[in-house]
Amino acid sequence: VLVGPGDDAAAVRPTRRPLLLTTDSLIESVHFRHGWTSPADLGRRAFAVNASDIAAMGGAPRYALVALEIPGRAPVAEIDALVAGFSTAARRSGARLIGGNLARGPHLAITVTLIGEAPGRVVTRSGARPGDHLFVTGALGATGLAVRRLAAGRRGRLPALPNRVSQGILLARLAHAMIDVSDGLAQDLGHVCRASSVAAEIELARLPVATACRRALGERAEVFAATAGEDYELLVAIPPHQLPALARLRLGCRLTEIGRVARGRPAVRLLDRAGLPVRVPRGGFDHFARA
Amino acid sequence: VLVGPGDDAAAVRPTRRPLLLTTDSLIESVHFRHGWTSPADLGRRAFAVNASDIAAMGGAPRYALVALEIPGRAPVAEIDALVAGFSTAARRSGARLIGGNLARGPHLAITVTLIGEAPGRVVTRSGARPGDHLFVTGALGATGLAVRRLAAGRRGRLPALPNRVSQGILLARLAHAMIDVSDGLAQDLGHVCRASSVAAEIELARLPVATACRRALGERAEVFAATAGEDYELLVAIPPHQLPALARLRLGCRLTEIGRVARGRPAVRLLDRAGLPVRVPRGGFDHFARA
Repeated sequence: VLVGPGDDAAAVRPTRRPLLLTTDSLIESVHFRHGWTSPADLGRRAFAVNASDIAAMGGAPRYALVALEIPGRAPVAEIDALVAGFSTAARRSGARLIGGNLARGPHLAITVTLIGEAPGRVVTRSGARPGDHLFVTGALGATGLAVRRLAAGRRGRLPALPNRVSQGILLARLAHAMIDVSDGLAQDLGHVCRASSVAAEIELARLPVATACRRALGERAEVFAATAGEDYELLVAIPPHQLPALARLRLGCRLTEIGRVARGRPAVRLLDRAGLPVRVPRGGFDHFARA
Repeated sequence: VLVGPGDDAAAVRPTRRPLLLTTDSLIESVHFRHGWTSPADLGRRAFAVNASDIAAMGGAPRYALVALEIPGRAPVAEIDALVAGFSTAARRSGARLIGGNLARGPHLAITVTLIGEAPGRVVTRSGARPGDHLFVTGALGATGLAVRRLAAGRRGRLPALPNRVSQGILLARLAHAMIDVSDGLAQDLGHVCRASSVAAEIELARLPVATACRRALGERAEVFAATAGEDYELLVAIPPHQLPALARLRLGCRLTEIGRVARGRPAVRLLDRAGLPVRVPRGGFDHFARA
């Protein structure tokens, strides 16, 4: 870092590695509501959702910029806590907060730009091929469930978001395509299918459903976990010849095979235990708000 | 550009030149009001205010990311026009829009991250030295006046913001310090003074006051132009031995000497024709709203 925060712009000396650049916002009343969580946790989450995009390309976060919209009522201590939460999460992930912008606004909004470096291959959404095996890291459904409970006015706590940076770098060596699960597994796999011009199938019975989600939703848990979103796990398409290498990776987190890429028009089929397609209502599962 | 918009992150291959990174927001009801200007012009302005920060470091914009908060009532055509305005301005300045984010929000907010490259020296705010001559590009006060008139409910048009990228690169070769004039000449010079631990004097009679501002405000025009802000011109501190080289630069815009850097505690003095300090009310000149 040649010039840090406080000047017109920050300045850094790049390496020869590809730079990865992403921007994402957390907006009050859209992505969260006031009181759902602490300012420090909001800062951590704002970092995590952006780091997830860098991880999904096979990169590691390096530099962060934060643009804050802060309502007049927000105490300075809360802003400090938010920035400290962000900054600590960034540092733990090998990144530095090098600049930002502060503006008054009618509500709290945190827009982060994260710049990462790819130590090896850059993996996009567009390389999936028929026959690829689909895997997902971690477990699904816990955050989606917590968000819907909080939105329904019930008490609850947002689970910490996973950090899959090291896993993303390892998986990038073998993957045809990778994406992070933010909109929902089925929706994000749909993005991969469209970008890669392939179809895909998910076997619901194989999904790594989070315990809290399984317990709360019973037999509805699998479809919920496949569509709820907010997981920030990695979904990855691995060609068959890389499966032995995949088995040798020391990922440090759960990795579950959940389906296959297939020939055909871009579409995602969710299959039940009998191998029959499950219909998913359009617009997702907001009726689970009272789950 | 290795990966453009539409994936989890964009990917670019950097050169060895220093990278400059800045982020800035334009927020409805804070930085502008609905109806003040067209969506395309808002897009252009969002690019220009960020390009100004890159220019003030001696760099050229290369890659842009745009995070939009869009109210539900905004027609798609307006969003398209805004992004097209931004994108065209970026392209004309040698930069590419490589990614972004779109979120619903209660009001329109445009947060831009601009990544530039410095072809030569990176100039900060902190290098000004006693004896440096202070210069400013272009003319001051026109946009500040237009904003206050519009805010007061009067008819008017926001002038186009200047593009000082090529001037910034040329001035960076000679400058001890540089900053763009966004808060107001006196305020921004104050930032330079604090960062450089110096004092500074501005001779109000030498200020390049915009014609519209001079005409509207008469003898108050100079103090207004020194404090109104929104100019996005470059303020630069040049050491005496570089004045001959400065005279040889072909800047392609007006450059006016307006004062000097001096020894002393960080402070900016505005001097009238008699060389006496002019008192500037705290909080700037919002009472000019009805100017």
